[in-house]
Amino acid sequence: MSENGAGPLAGLLVVDMASMMAAPGVAMMLADFGATVLKVERPDGGDVSRSAPMRAGSTSVWWRLLGRNKEAVTLNLKDKRAQEILRRILSDADVLIENNRPGKLEAMGLAPAALHADNPGLIILRVTGWGQTGPYADRATFGTQIEAMSGFAYANGHPDGPPTLPSFALADGCTGYLGAFAVMAALWAREHDPEHRGQVIDLSIFEALFGMLGPQASAFDKLDLVYERQGSRAPLSAPRNVYRARDGRYVAVSTSGGAHIAHRTFAAMGRGDLIAHPHFATLEARLAHIDEVDATMQEWIGRHDADDIVRALSEAGASVAPIYSIADVFRDPHFQARELIVAAPSADIGPVKMQNVVPKLSRTPGAVRWSGRPLGADNEHWLIERLGLSREEVDALRRDGAI
Amino acid sequence: MSENGAGPLAGLLVVDMASMMAAPGVAMMLADFGATVLKVERPDGGDVSRSAPMRAGSTSVWWRLLGRNKEAVTLNLKDKRAQEILRRILSDADVLIENNRPGKLEAMGLAPAALHADNPGLIILRVTGWGQTGPYADRATFGTQIEAMSGFAYANGHPDGPPTLPSFALADGCTGYLGAFAVMAALWAREHDPEHRGQVIDLSIFEALFGMLGPQASAFDKLDLVYERQGSRAPLSAPRNVYRARDGRYVAVSTSGGAHIAHRTFAAMGRGDLIAHPHFATLEARLAHIDEVDATMQEWIGRHDADDIVRALSEAGASVAPIYSIADVFRDPHFQARELIVAAPSADIGPVKMQNVVPKLSRTPGAVRWSGRPLGADNEHWLIERLGLSREEVDALRRDGAI
Repeated sequence: MSENGAGPLAGLLVVDMASMMAAPGVAMMLADFGATVLKVERPDGGDVSRSAPMRAGSTSVWWRLLGRNKEAVTLNLKDKRAQEILRRILSDADVLIENNRPGKLEAMGLAPAALHADNPGLIILRVTGWGQTGPYADRATFGTQIEAMSGFAYANGHPDGPPTLPSFALADGCTGYLGAFAVMAALWAREHDPEHRGQVIDLSIFEALFGMLGPQASAFDKLDLVYERQGSRAPLSAPRNVYRARDGRYVAVSTSGGAHIAHRTFAAMGRGDLIAHPHFATLEARLAHIDEVDATMQEWIGRHDADDIVRALSEAGASVAPIYSIADVFRDPHFQARELIVAAPSADIGPVKMQNVVPKLSRTPGAVRWSGRPLGADNEHWLIERLGLSREEVDALRRDGAI
Repeated sequence: MSENGAGPLAGLLVVDMASMMAAPGVAMMLADFGATVLKVERPDGGDVSRSAPMRAGSTSVWWRLLGRNKEAVTLNLKDKRAQEILRRILSDADVLIENNRPGKLEAMGLAPAALHADNPGLIILRVTGWGQTGPYADRATFGTQIEAMSGFAYANGHPDGPPTLPSFALADGCTGYLGAFAVMAALWAREHDPEHRGQVIDLSIFEALFGMLGPQASAFDKLDLVYERQGSRAPLSAPRNVYRARDGRYVAVSTSGGAHIAHRTFAAMGRGDLIAHPHFATLEARLAHIDEVDATMQEWIGRHDADDIVRALSEAGASVAPIYSIADVFRDPHFQARELIVAAPSADIGPVKMQNVVPKLSRTPGAVRWSGRPLGADNEHWLIERLGLSREEVDALRRDGAI
């Protein structure tokens, strides 16, 4: 938290009416850094992430994470009173985050033009798989489709195996980061606009993933290069692979960053002779003789234990790491020193450990204050204290299923 | 570009003295949205990304991409005059982006406290593999180590194969997005601080990747669950895999997002009988009988061509996609309609195609204006026109190797 405990985005009001991962991930980033984020959910079960697999207590760990630092209210937007409440909230909000299919917001009476008539400064972040326009705009989308069509899966895996999807929600995860940046850019533009105007952000999960895949498009355009599956090898570095140590553990070695890195690695292996070897001297030579290079690495690594390999090559300034599972991450002293894992309070199952807020801001850091709250936990705070409804009105809304 | 052609971040001055991927990727995001980004490079070769593999003309496609929209000046910071020029530029800048090992900036006489004495509002983004603190802070780092130790590689690949590193610079890519957000959050804090103070951002590439891996830490903490390699299967959805169609092409199918998605998929396959089958009715049942589920999917998919599968399951509202290479991405009509790929002018090899700016802002969009420029291309503009040096002074700097 900042000097006053509030984080750099204190004072911003963000309404998160999205579900599951990508768009709620944007809202989580903003909440981590101090924005007030109001999660608006359907009364009948709420966000899909609550009932997703991997339940801890009654609620999935997905919601424990994605709901952190958010306030939770329920609104059934089929009820006119609930619609009116949402419109009142949005008239004072800075940001609306939604991930309906294109056109659905409009069908709900919440078209951007209508929202901007009430509140010209509103930033409206619309997150969809394929974007608001184009032939696939109306398709159902999940991260898997995006990982399949972005080129990621095509190039992920081994040459003798099938294309391989990621083991985690890669496309959704990077969309969280990109969307948080885009919201801040639009807020910056609003602050520097004499008319203080907001705008609409059309954020495609596909485009977020594709945007961080590096120069593959340029390499295809100029060099006719198509990234093929090559296991853990890479076009930019050789050796670069995963090898099996004597004790059965795996270690990764990479030598990008200049010729001296590979040379240091060979020297640390007691193979200084390779530095001048025609198959090993330059990156181009090593890439051309990659099977020989990998066999040489595996031969040495297979004769040593993983910890010794990491220590010896690290001390030589080479670039090496053990392959860690999440259990290894929890045990690692560096990550403990960095407070990578933080325990977030919950209402029902005690503290829930999760990744901490990143990165670290020196003057106004973010903070994890609580994990995802129960459905409707903040209904009374918002409806009575913030919006001035009476207890009788709130009781009626609840009785009618409007909240 | 915005209504005045400048993008939402017009007026901001960012100095990028970093190299290669992660930190320059942050600067690229800011440049894409209109900030003036000044790339400061050593006169002897400049950023490593210029001489990286995958050359198009004399320069790698890495620099063509990462240098886009940036102005390029050379400064040899071993020369006192060059140091003084950098200090003058930083005294007027909004953001400094660097990725030296911890302590090196201080050793160069550019400690944050000294920079803040000149310019209290400066945002200093420090990008390193492991962060500025902790036992590994001084280690050499590349993305591969981070992908190895984050849990990514451990869970990526097939159960009968080794852990698998990504085929592209995953950790660097997501750091670009996260760093751009963090800079904007710090700028927002500065705008709302009565003393207009900047701060230091400690951005670890490891933490950026770990932060977007989803609820693995919480699942380990509360459920003792360690993500293992499971090919293209996933814990959240079943079926979710890559299957081989009759014509030899691969298709990905996912059914997350609620029970109805899997049921629609079965119905579209003419297997409505599975909806009530005890091994297929619920997600839990399908996960418990995943080999049977995948065999059923493969049997049907293997009897049809990829395009027909995608069409049939898409029309049914199921979630399916072909596995695309970068060549397929270029051909796809949706991505053409979205202008996913843009041609960026270059000084020497004509337009270079690359991914466009994302996401799309309705009022103040970003734009790709040029691809990475030649080393020192903007020296005279900056030194003479912006800083007021004489031509004689610039000639002397060049003669002495200071620029």
